[in-house]
Amino acid sequence: VKESGVKQSIISLFLRNEGLFISGEDISGALGFSRACAWKYINKLRDEGYLIEAVPHLGYRLKSAPDKLYGYAIASGLNTRTIGKKSIFYYESTDSTNDRAYELAENGEPEGTVVIAETQTHGKGRVGRKWLSPKGGGIYMSLLLRPGVETDEIPAVTLIAAAAIVKAIKKTCGLEAGMKWPNDILISGKKVCGILTEIKAQPDRVDFLILGIGINVNTPSGKLPPEGTSLRIESSSRVNRSALARCMLEELENAYLRSREEGFISLREECKAMSLVLGKRVKVVEHHRAVEGLAVDIDEKGALIIRTDDRALQRVFSGDVITVSR
Amino acid sequence: VKESGVKQSIISLFLRNEGLFISGEDISGALGFSRACAWKYINKLRDEGYLIEAVPHLGYRLKSAPDKLYGYAIASGLNTRTIGKKSIFYYESTDSTNDRAYELAENGEPEGTVVIAETQTHGKGRVGRKWLSPKGGGIYMSLLLRPGVETDEIPAVTLIAAAAIVKAIKKTCGLEAGMKWPNDILISGKKVCGILTEIKAQPDRVDFLILGIGINVNTPSGKLPPEGTSLRIESSSRVNRSALARCMLEELENAYLRSREEGFISLREECKAMSLVLGKRVKVVEHHRAVEGLAVDIDEKGALIIRTDDRALQRVFSGDVITVSR
Repeated sequence: VKESGVKQSIISLFLRNEGLFISGEDISGALGFSRACAWKYINKLRDEGYLIEAVPHLGYRLKSAPDKLYGYAIASGLNTRTIGKKSIFYYESTDSTNDRAYELAENGEPEGTVVIAETQTHGKGRVGRKWLSPKGGGIYMSLLLRPGVETDEIPAVTLIAAAAIVKAIKKTCGLEAGMKWPNDILISGKKVCGILTEIKAQPDRVDFLILGIGINVNTPSGKLPPEGTSLRIESSSRVNRSALARCMLEELENAYLRSREEGFISLREECKAMSLVLGKRVKVVEHHRAVEGLAVDIDEKGALIIRTDDRALQRVFSGDVITVSR
Repeated sequence: VKESGVKQSIISLFLRNEGLFISGEDISGALGFSRACAWKYINKLRDEGYLIEAVPHLGYRLKSAPDKLYGYAIASGLNTRTIGKKSIFYYESTDSTNDRAYELAENGEPEGTVVIAETQTHGKGRVGRKWLSPKGGGIYMSLLLRPGVETDEIPAVTLIAAAAIVKAIKKTCGLEAGMKWPNDILISGKKVCGILTEIKAQPDRVDFLILGIGINVNTPSGKLPPEGTSLRIESSSRVNRSALARCMLEELENAYLRSREEGFISLREECKAMSLVLGKRVKVVEHHRAVEGLAVDIDEKGALIIRTDDRALQRVFSGDVITVSR
């Protein structure tokens, strides 16, 4: 039995009996271990920051959990089929969770593997940019998927993920976020989350896909860039990061499974409804070109459709979007 | 000074003075080394299979080179700017040169890095297939490029590479090969070479591209699959593999640099002229669909254009092509 599995079981037991005492006998019975062994794991959890009260004749009670994104804590009560079920790799600090997940993918780890970190020293954004990843408030998480799609379906995967995160934010914090095509999530016009999709591919097959998510949860304003905000700032209350991570993984799996069964088409209207750029005049800057006009649609491949001033329709697959006024 | 660099210099000197004796003094002078040191490297080359004659008062003469794809041997006299100039990694055997090159790319090796092997234990073909890589006759080579293109330009890169290899085969062996879209090279209707392009990418940027080439050079028919042939079988004479590898790298660089400056458009007519499928009735099987009709064009993105029986034009980006008769 893996140590993380035992910890996960104990945490799950405490969470199912919130505020209640559980006898040592019940704990060891639930785990199928001796009481001495249960005691050992209780102490390991205490070492990792869990405040566990012990009262003779009553047993144990969880008083507080540490503010850490431990894999076993997120896995406790995680209601998914695949995502996060096999492995959640946890790092206090790593260079980039996407790079870690990419390595794991190369080494054959299965779909649904998750990498999560408290901070990234080289967090990555789109087109080689940095993603600021301060410690103490964010969730930096990468998810390995092996969807068997073609490369032109990748923009749609990013949009599906963004929609899932918007839902998780609504469920967990009650906040209304919107999607800034192609890969950002905004609240009140400020960036709260970014997504970086990376793939290994042959011309007609994606070997695997890494969905990287950086989200400012409890991050104080002093640690954010000027154009950024955090869920805590927007909701004026501290967010349980593990609960949010769990909810994001659940929503991501829902959206992913649905898109695999029914295609992006089944989620397209939802993505359009969450979009902050549709109906606005925008300028999209890609590598070699800039397209300016009215953002009129997101098509069946996830491309943004722009009606330029000569009434022509242009498709753009990615790029920086700036809202402009005439 | 790297050992491979010294060996490369000595081999180059011998190749420039083919059939002639070179004095120990001239060798050491050309290298800037002592005669004792030159002697040491001559012996290293002998250990690796070079037959080097030594005659008092005359000096050294290269009688024969081993049939090995040593990086320094290929680099001797290689007329390129970038490709193969920095590093050629040589393996007697490796699982897959593409996988080795991919690792090197992840570790930051520069554009133009080459991996070459005498045999592959897990040679890869398109869509997860195997590529038979017997020892003693083939060239299994992967090239790292960092072209800064978008994912939809990858099919064109594969075609450009195929065209370069067709030219190198013509120059080195005098054989007329043709291109079977999207990634094979055929002589007399049989497969002599396959190309496997793999990328690491974000939605709007290719981080790097690995061009994998497997070519049957001196491979005897007993080691080939039924649908395969080798240059030796087709030309009835043994081919100098190092010379062919060098010529392929040179043609690949020419085509690559030209495509970067002028775009695929500048090489499209050439690719079309070499194509074995244009003008034929074909069936292309992709993941989810099969398209049957007359192959009428290769477009500006490298896609195959098929006119179906209802006169509609269909674009396909990759897949298995079967020539069919009605």
